[in-house]
Amino acid sequence: MKTFAGRYFEDYRIGETLHHAVPRTIGAGERALYHALYPARTALQSSDAFAQSCGLPASPMDDLAVFHVIFGKTVPDVSLNAVANLGYAQGRWHRLVWPGDTLSSRSEVIGLKQNSNGKSGVVYVRTEGRNQHGDLVMDYVRWVMVRKGNLDAPAPETLIPELPGVLSARDLIIPEGLDFSGYDFTLAGEAHRWGDYEVGEVIDHVDGVTVEEAEHMMATRLWQNTSKVHFDATLREDGRRLIYGGHVISLARALSFNGLANAQLIVGLNGGAHANPCFAGMTVKAWSEVLDRAETSVPGIGALRLRLVATSGGAPFALKDAAGKYLPEVLLDLDYWALIPL
Amino acid sequence: MKTFAGRYFEDYRIGETLHHAVPRTIGAGERALYHALYPARTALQSSDAFAQSCGLPASPMDDLAVFHVIFGKTVPDVSLNAVANLGYAQGRWHRLVWPGDTLSSRSEVIGLKQNSNGKSGVVYVRTEGRNQHGDLVMDYVRWVMVRKGNLDAPAPETLIPELPGVLSARDLIIPEGLDFSGYDFTLAGEAHRWGDYEVGEVIDHVDGVTVEEAEHMMATRLWQNTSKVHFDATLREDGRRLIYGGHVISLARALSFNGLANAQLIVGLNGGAHANPCFAGMTVKAWSEVLDRAETSVPGIGALRLRLVATSGGAPFALKDAAGKYLPEVLLDLDYWALIPL
Amino acid sequence: MKTFAGRYFEDYRIGETLHHAVPRTIGAGERALYHALYPARTALQSSDAFAQSCGLPASPMDDLAVFHVIFGKTVPDVSLNAVANLGYAQGRWHRLVWPGDTLSSRSEVIGLKQNSNGKSGVVYVRTEGRNQHGDLVMDYVRWVMVRKGNLDAPAPETLIPELPGVLSARDLIIPEGLDFSGYDFTLAGEAHRWGDYEVGEVIDHVDGVTVEEAEHMMATRLWQNTSKVHFDATLREDGRRLIYGGHVISLARALSFNGLANAQLIVGLNGGAHANPCFAGMTVKAWSEVLDRAETSVPGIGALRLRLVATSGGAPFALKDAAGKYLPEVLLDLDYWALIPL
Repeated sequence: MKTFAGRYFEDYRIGETLHHAVPRTIGAGERALYHALYPARTALQSSDAFAQSCGLPASPMDDLAVFHVIFGKTVPDVSLNAVANLGYAQGRWHRLVWPGDTLSSRSEVIGLKQNSNGKSGVVYVRTEGRNQHGDLVMDYVRWVMVRKGNLDAPAPETLIPELPGVLSARDLIIPEGLDFSGYDFTLAGEAHRWGDYEVGEVIDHVDGVTVEEAEHMMATRLWQNTSKVHFDATLREDGRRLIYGGHVISLARALSFNGLANAQLIVGLNGGAHANPCFAGMTVKAWSEVLDRAETSVPGIGALRLRLVATSGGAPFALKDAAGKYLPEVLLDLDYWALIPL
Repeated sequence: MKTFAGRYFEDYRIGETLHHAVPRTIGAGERALYHALYPARTALQSSDAFAQSCGLPASPMDDLAVFHVIFGKTVPDVSLNAVANLGYAQGRWHRLVWPGDTLSSRSEVIGLKQNSNGKSGVVYVRTEGRNQHGDLVMDYVRWVMVRKGNLDAPAPETLIPELPGVLSARDLIIPEGLDFSGYDFTLAGEAHRWGDYEVGEVIDHVDGVTVEEAEHMMATRLWQNTSKVHFDATLREDGRRLIYGGHVISLARALSFNGLANAQLIVGLNGGAHANPCFAGMTVKAWSEVLDRAETSVPGIGALRLRLVATSGGAPFALKDAAGKYLPEVLLDLDYWALIPL
Repeated sequence: MKTFAGRYFEDYRIGETLHHAVPRTIGAGERALYHALYPARTALQSSDAFAQSCGLPASPMDDLAVFHVIFGKTVPDVSLNAVANLGYAQGRWHRLVWPGDTLSSRSEVIGLKQNSNGKSGVVYVRTEGRNQHGDLVMDYVRWVMVRKGNLDAPAPETLIPELPGVLSARDLIIPEGLDFSGYDFTLAGEAHRWGDYEVGEVIDHVDGVTVEEAEHMMATRLWQNTSKVHFDATLREDGRRLIYGGHVISLARALSFNGLANAQLIVGLNGGAHANPCFAGMTVKAWSEVLDRAETSVPGIGALRLRLVATSGGAPFALKDAAGKYLPEVLLDLDYWALIPL
């Protein structure tokens, strides 16, 4: 067989390294598409001049575009036969990515647990993305439920990695050179700085975007994510394609500009759940909750820990039902750290 | 409140300057998307080699892309609570924009007039777009009808700015270096030069483009235009999104290549009306009328004043009914000056 | 008349050269859009770093993007009044195209044959695409059936050019500098090299992509292909737009990554038939057959002659019915040479 149908649960071994294809150079085109596909407006990622006023040589690639490119490469080796994408943890952005950089990914299998039904199991991987110089630009842990191909294959020894749920603010990496001392709040779009946000505060980001099939497929292809369910309408009886969860993350993050315009860079991913599937025709809205605040190692740069929730309707700030189950209109519940002028 | 719901009529003051967020660097990606979203073919904006044969260092960004980027920034401060976009005047392109340039906008409030119903008023702004060097690249006047937020707010003193309806050809700015002496009409696509067009002549541009929701949303996002009505299908009972008027301008201008291939650069905007709303599913066609001809200050470069009409059907050249009202199929009536080899 | 309605059969003369408008500079934006519109993953076209490891200065523009740009320019002069695109032959890529290059096209009329019904005829053209230095980057022969505008025009003398059906492997041009001696099969995505493919072998590329109107229109516009049938929903009773045949070629080629990941560059086009029209809503799948294998003039670089078939359903490997007619679900039957590590 020349084609590759993806790995099954029994194909993974603890400690194994998966070297993912295909390295990818990103630049001016990916940046423009990011702005066409998502209502992204953060000034650092929109303007070379603004980025230079913040100590950077140019406007970096959007942190989530970097995540998507690194993630996309893992799909053929990790999630082609996945039943569900269960979680993320310990995601850190180590270094900014610039137009012209080439990204590649590899993953280490750090945990395995066969399900009691014997038909699938959970695979934990730590994925690293590196640039053309071999420098680490991002890493994160992800776990997915993967089907078994051979139901008779023996269960591996169970190993569930220890994953601290939330990154400490002192683990966050501040991009080299970043300096908010000359930050222009007017150009950035809002006046609110770190000190203006309180833990527990919730923000309804107001705007909604109705999603089209062409848009999410273009985005998902751009990240070279090859999962069939995003592209092939014949796989579901209703002819709809399941939207890549990362598309919802980028949509919600872009919508959060209205209220969080100065939360310029995502530097930590504490966790995330794709609570319900998203389909074309849904109108995605977003709200945020301030979960924590911290100073960072660099003067003038603060960090906010934010919950970002995307919904397809319903009242803002409603998340779970009395039984603790996500409400059906909740699409995403993401927990991340962002940098903001102190 | 961390989010911004937009300004209301009573929030504007004569003489006030609005500094718009977010500066934006545009380049190779925006150019490619412009060509993917509109059937644009003018040679100056398609080819570095052609532009160099016309005295320019490279192919400039499309003049309407520049307009959209500058316009998009004004939306959060000027038209988020607008009832209608009433008109444009005195638009001038002062300087070409090159890939890599960063654009920012600011507007001065130059007129106010509360409507007799007391519920809304007309706001006149003069908007300037500048590049990263602070050089003026475009300015124009626009007036919009904006809702009052507080109906009890007192009416401001009425001031309606004097706006000469049409720019004189001698007010047009010819881009530095532009030289049509080596112009290649074959490569440009048509043989017709300035002298071949007569005042009163009408041209049916023949082709039609059926618009999709994904396309106009991608375009409007690319210009960072945040007006909800373009993106949120839940705002109208019929689930359609109102297409950004500028999308129709770019579509019609691109369609006008067939008959006006040598009208290479738009340098003046005399006025424009979005006669009827445009929605996805409509097939947009265009026709033009030559309103005036003039020589310019540069030998070999002529100017045509053109009416550009976009329609969603109906007979070409039909514009208004007996009562002087736009026909229901007319989407756009634009009056502009373009440069063409003499 | 200022507009151009396209040429009719009687307007062509043997030996005539058609200089096509409009030259076009392509680069980072077109590359990103190519990856957003097609699930393209070949490493040479994805990564500067990978291309450099193969002896190239950077990642070249996709060979099919080059074909589309050169082809698109011919549409206004060759196929605006075409009834059908009948075939391709002798397509060769002579030189890689780099971001920033400007492409232009011209065609020579090399054959004419009026149909017996007197209402149309077949026009054969040899098209050349050149870069800004005047270097040949691609040429190919194409023949189309074109309507007569004036049915009384006399039939031209019939001349059917001699077209060897298949390029010999020794006619293929290996891009300057290309060197597979340090080729990384892991990064490229598959382990199969030239010697692993056998003549007669068939490969089902598994994945399917459901096509949307917005996607094929964006692609076709990007190539400045102006054929009305791709854009105007009012031309057919069912409101569908006929998808540009080249869009199907790129879709199928991109899908063929799964099984042919190392067939990095297309260098020869032996022939191709658009067997049935493609419309939005169809789910396109692809399969390939190895038609031939050959070594090339460069050590380490082999060539595979491949049949690439795109379908909208049906069983893989089914092509024609008992009468030799393409099955209704077959969209494309393409015959090309690609380079692959020996």
